[in-house]
Amino acid sequence: MATATNQRIGRRERQRERRLELPLSKFKFRLLQNPLPPVEYLPPEQIEELHEASMQILEDIGMDFYDAEALAALEKAGARVDHKAQHAWLDRGLVMETVANAPDFFTVRARNPAHHVKIGKNFITFLPMGGMAYVSSLDMERRTGTQAHTENFIKLSQMCNMLHVGGGGLAAQDVHVSVRHLRQAYAVYTLTDKVAGGSSHGRVMPQDAINMAKIVYGDDFDGDPVLFGNVNASSPLRYDERMLGGMITFAHAKQAMIVTPFILAGAMSPISIASAMAQQNAEALAGIALIQLINPGAPVVYGGFTTNTDMKTGSPAFGTPEGAWALLVGAQLARRYHLPYRGSGSLCSSNVPDAQAAYETMWTMWPAVMAHTNVVMHSLGWLENGLTVSYEKYILDLESLAMFHHFLEGFTINKETLALDMIAEVGPGGHHFGTPHTQTRYQTEFYEPIVHSRIGYENWVVNGAQDAVQRANAIWKTLLAQYEPPYLDPGVEEGLREYAQRRERELEGIDLYTG
Amino acid sequence: MATATNQRIGRRERQRERRLELPLSKFKFRLLQNPLPPVEYLPPEQIEELHEASMQILEDIGMDFYDAEALAALEKAGARVDHKAQHAWLDRGLVMETVANAPDFFTVRARNPAHHVKIGKNFITFLPMGGMAYVSSLDMERRTGTQAHTENFIKLSQMCNMLHVGGGGLAAQDVHVSVRHLRQAYAVYTLTDKVAGGSSHGRVMPQDAINMAKIVYGDDFDGDPVLFGNVNASSPLRYDERMLGGMITFAHAKQAMIVTPFILAGAMSPISIASAMAQQNAEALAGIALIQLINPGAPVVYGGFTTNTDMKTGSPAFGTPEGAWALLVGAQLARRYHLPYRGSGSLCSSNVPDAQAAYETMWTMWPAVMAHTNVVMHSLGWLENGLTVSYEKYILDLESLAMFHHFLEGFTINKETLALDMIAEVGPGGHHFGTPHTQTRYQTEFYEPIVHSRIGYENWVVNGAQDAVQRANAIWKTLLAQYEPPYLDPGVEEGLREYAQRRERELEGIDLYTG
Repeated sequence: MATATNQRIGRRERQRERRLELPLSKFKFRLLQNPLPPVEYLPPEQIEELHEASMQILEDIGMDFYDAEALAALEKAGARVDHKAQHAWLDRGLVMETVANAPDFFTVRARNPAHHVKIGKNFITFLPMGGMAYVSSLDMERRTGTQAHTENFIKLSQMCNMLHVGGGGLAAQDVHVSVRHLRQAYAVYTLTDKVAGGSSHGRVMPQDAINMAKIVYGDDFDGDPVLFGNVNASSPLRYDERMLGGMITFAHAKQAMIVTPFILAGAMSPISIASAMAQQNAEALAGIALIQLINPGAPVVYGGFTTNTDMKTGSPAFGTPEGAWALLVGAQLARRYHLPYRGSGSLCSSNVPDAQAAYETMWTMWPAVMAHTNVVMHSLGWLENGLTVSYEKYILDLESLAMFHHFLEGFTINKETLALDMIAEVGPGGHHFGTPHTQTRYQTEFYEPIVHSRIGYENWVVNGAQDAVQRANAIWKTLLAQYEPPYLDPGVEEGLREYAQRRERELEGIDLYTG
Repeated sequence: MATATNQRIGRRERQRERRLELPLSKFKFRLLQNPLPPVEYLPPEQIEELHEASMQILEDIGMDFYDAEALAALEKAGARVDHKAQHAWLDRGLVMETVANAPDFFTVRARNPAHHVKIGKNFITFLPMGGMAYVSSLDMERRTGTQAHTENFIKLSQMCNMLHVGGGGLAAQDVHVSVRHLRQAYAVYTLTDKVAGGSSHGRVMPQDAINMAKIVYGDDFDGDPVLFGNVNASSPLRYDERMLGGMITFAHAKQAMIVTPFILAGAMSPISIASAMAQQNAEALAGIALIQLINPGAPVVYGGFTTNTDMKTGSPAFGTPEGAWALLVGAQLARRYHLPYRGSGSLCSSNVPDAQAAYETMWTMWPAVMAHTNVVMHSLGWLENGLTVSYEKYILDLESLAMFHHFLEGFTINKETLALDMIAEVGPGGHHFGTPHTQTRYQTEFYEPIVHSRIGYENWVVNGAQDAVQRANAIWKTLLAQYEPPYLDPGVEEGLREYAQRRERELEGIDLYTG
């Protein structure tokens, strides 16, 4: 990259930081590691019981694979396959040997090298929400997602350094489904320089994602993956054509794929969490084994999304004790196979960003972090079982991401920070506000909140008695007003635009999964 | 106890449960243990650095003790004492040998033996909030506490089985301060049969608490403690006459005392958390050593309350990453000395029970539980840095206590719960709602929420679009409407009433700390 370009970027960066008067400008992009040992919820022998049960499921019950290439690959590797039923039985030797080819640690590249992420070990990577149908804010009733809202969230993902990966997470329902992925990819590459989540369902959309990534990365496309996709098993015990198409297309191109069984215990699995976890493990390993058969060494992540069904309403229940068990135990299972682990962050069932939403979110995020969840999907913004992304919840959750960064970075113990001289000097009953030790540190020592307020009650009332949601509303608006796009080579932009426009014409009205 | 009485209690119990249609009737009183190993935030060598620094503080800088009996006890044990300055220097031999006399595990008795609690090891005991000046609810502006509100919260503490200890937590400012403790103690003994927190400041109030406990327990008073008090160091480095009076009076009577330095880093200690923790450790151990000098083996708890100051406002900041460090490291230090550990639960800075309050509370409660905090004070109800108790926040926090009970009790893995037969029977793509495995378990398998709602958006709107606070408002009112006092022997009630009335006459207008 030319020096002039670097200088231009540097100037913009400084301008942006000067203009951003929110505490957000302090938060630099940095990878996050959890230095604590992971919480091991179950003893090793119980993890083995779950492993054993999952092997029995794959050997004796088997799974559906609705894709001929998948069934052929499994059969070639020695699995018993019923092509008519599109069903395969996988013995443990096949599964374990194949899964062993998956890397335990890999890098996913962003178009800005400063935004590469590392997946595995004790690294924790925060991803934005995904797959939302509705959008809400304090200013408007919940409504269906649009391209404009999607782009707003991509912009926010670029501006929020606590978040490691870019993306909009919202289905733009004012754009025809056959071309939505093209608009989405174009928006992601032009509005953020962070790692891009790629459309990973079917064969058409992933191939478009790969083709567009090749325009962005050019000769540098090969090497560490530049796309990060997620597929779900259609639990129980089925991968459908959409998911298998995505898995196989990404595997051929060696792009990173998260394989996540979608289990609400009591509906998509037996109600007992033990059974749900055994089934999750069987499904996740089957998917990962398939990817490794297609392309040994392709980067994959063991995904967990298991929680319980609310048995009164039949709805999913997020942010529950059962969900916390599943998060923690899922991480243990992933470690059992030396696989990076994906969990979730802001999951909640509440319909509004109220106290319930916050409690449920923390019942997801705390176990996720303590479990060494390498890939935290849906780190922020969730409401209503993931149907809705809320602008205010996005900002509220951002605070908690920033707090986890600070918390896991820890504090220093040495002669200077122990400051016994200051304790002696101030003595009993005094106060430390004015000491040199405090004065040199008071602006930087503590985590300074983004949206949390500590104004005393009387002043708070005088200032309008705003609750957290009202303050969050002001913050996302200020951020969007200050947004500036990251530098993108004009030739690359043109290439992306031309590709997207051509494909839009070609795909108009075509079924992406069969066409 | 007579069989007739038992029958009467049993009948009442059944009546109450029939009338209580809230899910609360399902939650049985039970002690809570954390089977996971505690999270060790710092490596052992850093804990030793904090230990060493705290020993230097006690040896070289010393502390103020504003009480002649305290200074005499310290001097007799070999401490260097300046009586005029009311200051003492404690060497590490004295501190460590004396602290070693404290029990690592003890029982605190309730007047209902079913409500005894165990303190230490991996037991976690949830206490109500304490020391609040204001009360708020959705129906009324925040206002000063009254005896009526105090009694409401005592009633709620009796009804909520997730909470292990009874109490009102609110200063009844419509009762003169000289007799408030008597009204409080009478209300506690008549409205709840759980462990009573005793007034533990000065010498007069603790002695009244002890005298009233003797009326309740009669010949059974001796033995395991029946009162649970908390004192704070007036940080930095000072115990005042009120705190020392309480510590000494409780120690003589072998009642349980929590010793908690009150440190907001940057104000009551140097701003660095390392320094704050070293100072906390010095202050806590000095208080515990004193109690053990007065009465070796008296039950004590190492208390931590350290958090940071908000350096913009000078206010305390609760539910912060720094507070989480202090909670976790405090627990490690307590374990270092084989002492039970006290932390906190619902601490937050928010002025209203909004999302901020919930996030901050979870930033206190999650580390508290993961740290094996044996005594979780302020488990529920906090708002506004502890100035205000909110009826709705009380109910919202109750949900999280219930969730931790469920979470820590875990799930079973065996042939039945693995349910491979059901997985085989339902097969790929089916659902598990109607299986016998689900049908026999769906009412009891999962945690069922108290206040969290999982109603779908459209139905929720039709039903009034209530947020969590509105639902909590209905719940506490229903609970209070259904309250029935636990059985108390009429002779005991009369004894308590007569004692309180006599003492009210004697104490009217007297300064409790010098009179």
